[in-house]
Amino acid sequence: MDTPPPQSEAKPFAPVPAPIQRPDGIKHIIAVISGKGGVGKSTVSANIAASFAILGNTVGLFDADLTGHSQSMLFDTHTSIESMLKKHEPADCCGVKVASFGFLYPDAKTVIWRGPMISNGIKALFGQTNWGELDYLIVDLPPGTSDAQLTVIRDIPIDGGIVVTTPDPLAASVAERGLVMLSELNKKILGVVENMSAGVCQACGDALRPFGSGAGKKLAEKYGVAFFGTVPLSLELHDAVESRKPVVLKYPDSPASKSFFQITDALKKSLP
Amino acid sequence: MDTPPPQSEAKPFAPVPAPIQRPDGIKHIIAVISGKGGVGKSTVSANIAASFAILGNTVGLFDADLTGHSQSMLFDTHTSIESMLKKHEPADCCGVKVASFGFLYPDAKTVIWRGPMISNGIKALFGQTNWGELDYLIVDLPPGTSDAQLTVIRDIPIDGGIVVTTPDPLAASVAERGLVMLSELNKKILGVVENMSAGVCQACGDALRPFGSGAGKKLAEKYGVAFFGTVPLSLELHDAVESRKPVVLKYPDSPASKSFFQITDALKKSLP
Repeated sequence: MDTPPPQSEAKPFAPVPAPIQRPDGIKHIIAVISGKGGVGKSTVSANIAASFAILGNTVGLFDADLTGHSQSMLFDTHTSIESMLKKHEPADCCGVKVASFGFLYPDAKTVIWRGPMISNGIKALFGQTNWGELDYLIVDLPPGTSDAQLTVIRDIPIDGGIVVTTPDPLAASVAERGLVMLSELNKKILGVVENMSAGVCQACGDALRPFGSGAGKKLAEKYGVAFFGTVPLSLELHDAVESRKPVVLKYPDSPASKSFFQITDALKKSLP
Repeated sequence: MDTPPPQSEAKPFAPVPAPIQRPDGIKHIIAVISGKGGVGKSTVSANIAASFAILGNTVGLFDADLTGHSQSMLFDTHTSIESMLKKHEPADCCGVKVASFGFLYPDAKTVIWRGPMISNGIKALFGQTNWGELDYLIVDLPPGTSDAQLTVIRDIPIDGGIVVTTPDPLAASVAERGLVMLSELNKKILGVVENMSAGVCQACGDALRPFGSGAGKKLAEKYGVAFFGTVPLSLELHDAVESRKPVVLKYPDSPASKSFFQITDALKKSLP
């Protein structure tokens, strides 16, 4: 336990006192959380942020997953990495201001950090970023209920959280732990999103439900919180990721994009 | 950082000195790892373990994901929870000896623990379990490259690890961090498994690839390690999870089961 882990090229940040003061210019800070990994938190975060931008809002996206960071790969933004590194400016990604560990340490693919370094890193990256004026800041969390989540929920002034699950009941019961964590720490559960819901076979149009259906709505009902909607499995979503654009920008008329616009609208209405 | 998080009903284990001695009766200990969540580490772990059992081996399955535990839900084993709690006996699940945090604290759905408690909990649950004689012990890891992974890789005497990814290149580039972590800590990368690969539309038989194809094989080639095979997306897999049985037991003739048998065979041949 006392031997330091290998550090790759990444250097830890200087210690940051908790908690972080809310930057004056940010109106709403929304966490995207799940106890379960791989349910699509990053995809949902990126597309809600891009939807808000399309609607004319100023938007930021903070990738709080330091070991599993992916936001720097979801947007095509090679031009602004330098300014993120030197001037603490978030990258401008299709109108979304993105701060991700992937930008800060582009060569350090694998960062092996223990909890305290992760907690400090989250606070440092959030606090040192020059967010400017924002209507909405979306915070993309890693899976689980440990250090990173405690840090975001307690030390960053979030207004509440969105819980993401797949339609599978087992996945939802693990995703649920993120919802319970928000609740135990007295943060508002804004709503639930079900990702990887029924898609459509490209060949015959038949409905595809490899992960079942309905667990997201049931989870929302169980806790009496809003159900923001489902996002269908679709090739457009996969293709958009490949081309480094949120699907709402790449294929705005696709079923997945329509879902994200509806979810963003529901989220907007749930905020004070 | 100093305020203790809410504890739900779960109590921390007594401190365990690192590292854990290898229990005499266990021949092979294999970690199932990925930097990415939701790629199917738990499903792959459960089905490899069950496949080994079907082949006549004595097998254990250690769920090292304390906050995201799911193995207690993947098997139908209500009968043996008591003995796990009182006598430190793993649950007998269709011939697989399973130890999971879900058995130990069945009422504590959400455990909010910082890294040191998670590390200690992993060592305690592993070390206090009476594994007996085992040909193979599979260790199911949480996603990421932080405390839990450091503990399993350094403090538990694993022989090597299997890396799980989906066919999506972005997912694979995050999954890759688990592979790099094994390598940096001088553990053998036994092979790569690609889960959620091409499935088949139940209506028309057309191939479905909502997550693309090929990233698993490419990842294995990049590092010159074995590619154990693909597991197709299938309704049988989802249905087996719903009925709390590994698909290799519930639908042994399904395409997913055939994949798991092949993967298990490849894994077996990769071990000394």
